[in-house]
Amino acid sequence: MNTLHLTVPPETPSVTFTREIDAPPDVVYATMMDSELIPQWWGPSYLSTTVVTHQPVTGGSWRYVQTDPEGNEYGFHGVFHEITPGVRAVQTFEFEGMAGHVTLDTLIFEDLGGRTRLHGQSAFQSFEDRDGMVTSGMEGGMAEGYDRLEALILARA
Amino acid sequence: MNTLHLTVPPETPSVTFTREIDAPPDVVYATMMDSELIPQWWGPSYLSTTVVTHQPVTGGSWRYVQTDPEGNEYGFHGVFHEITPGVRAVQTFEFEGMAGHVTLDTLIFEDLGGRTRLHGQSAFQSFEDRDGMVTSGMEGGMAEGYDRLEALILARA
Repeated sequence: MNTLHLTVPPETPSVTFTREIDAPPDVVYATMMDSELIPQWWGPSYLSTTVVTHQPVTGGSWRYVQTDPEGNEYGFHGVFHEITPGVRAVQTFEFEGMAGHVTLDTLIFEDLGGRTRLHGQSAFQSFEDRDGMVTSGMEGGMAEGYDRLEALILARA
Repeated sequence: MNTLHLTVPPETPSVTFTREIDAPPDVVYATMMDSELIPQWWGPSYLSTTVVTHQPVTGGSWRYVQTDPEGNEYGFHGVFHEITPGVRAVQTFEFEGMAGHVTLDTLIFEDLGGRTRLHGQSAFQSFEDRDGMVTSGMEGGMAEGYDRLEALILARA
């Protein structure tokens, strides 16, 4: 069974991860970048996600809003520095509840021959930002999100 | 006389700097973001700079090409994650000669009352990237660029 492997390196303010998925890179990429499908996998299932903006091209922008069961809203946004379909996505990420704190996120799609190994890195502006994100439960939300993504891909295969 | 104060912290892969300019933030900001003026100050004077794209708004893109006396071209590009005029600019930066290596750059305009203190940070994806940029002569090019910017602002006052 595939799971998220997340690393919090002590020497640099980043988070790295790998996650394998039993589908080829073009399928994983196409599913992840489909704005209609993002609400079905992005983040933990107890939050509902609305895609406000989603332009997955180099120079495009994105913004999603999550709503919890009490109706509280959490906005996230950024820009796509580079989109090379099925190969690499480099984008910025800002949680609007922590405005002014931005990460630079890289996602690489490694082709394992019919399967994909995702390599992710979030580079933070400071150790404080990184450690705050990690202790806020980042790993659990990411792990659940990728589990949901994988289930969605396999259900559509 | 104002000069660039650049710091290369040993504990984190970033570069930070301050640079004061004897003009208010709105003037400094307006000069820096004017695409017609960028060739007059961006980088060292022995390179000529062409502005290919420059959209200084949140979600906009930028690309500049520098040409050396032998005609060699060096491209740079990125996206503007946030532009708050006269207050803050957050953008990505990639030197096309080192494709795939991206920094997240923040510039804050502190109002000193008729004067400005710029606070900059470049957050790199790795220590290797940061150290490579520093040893390539980043500081000299930046220092000259800000000297040229200041001279330009004072000449236009």
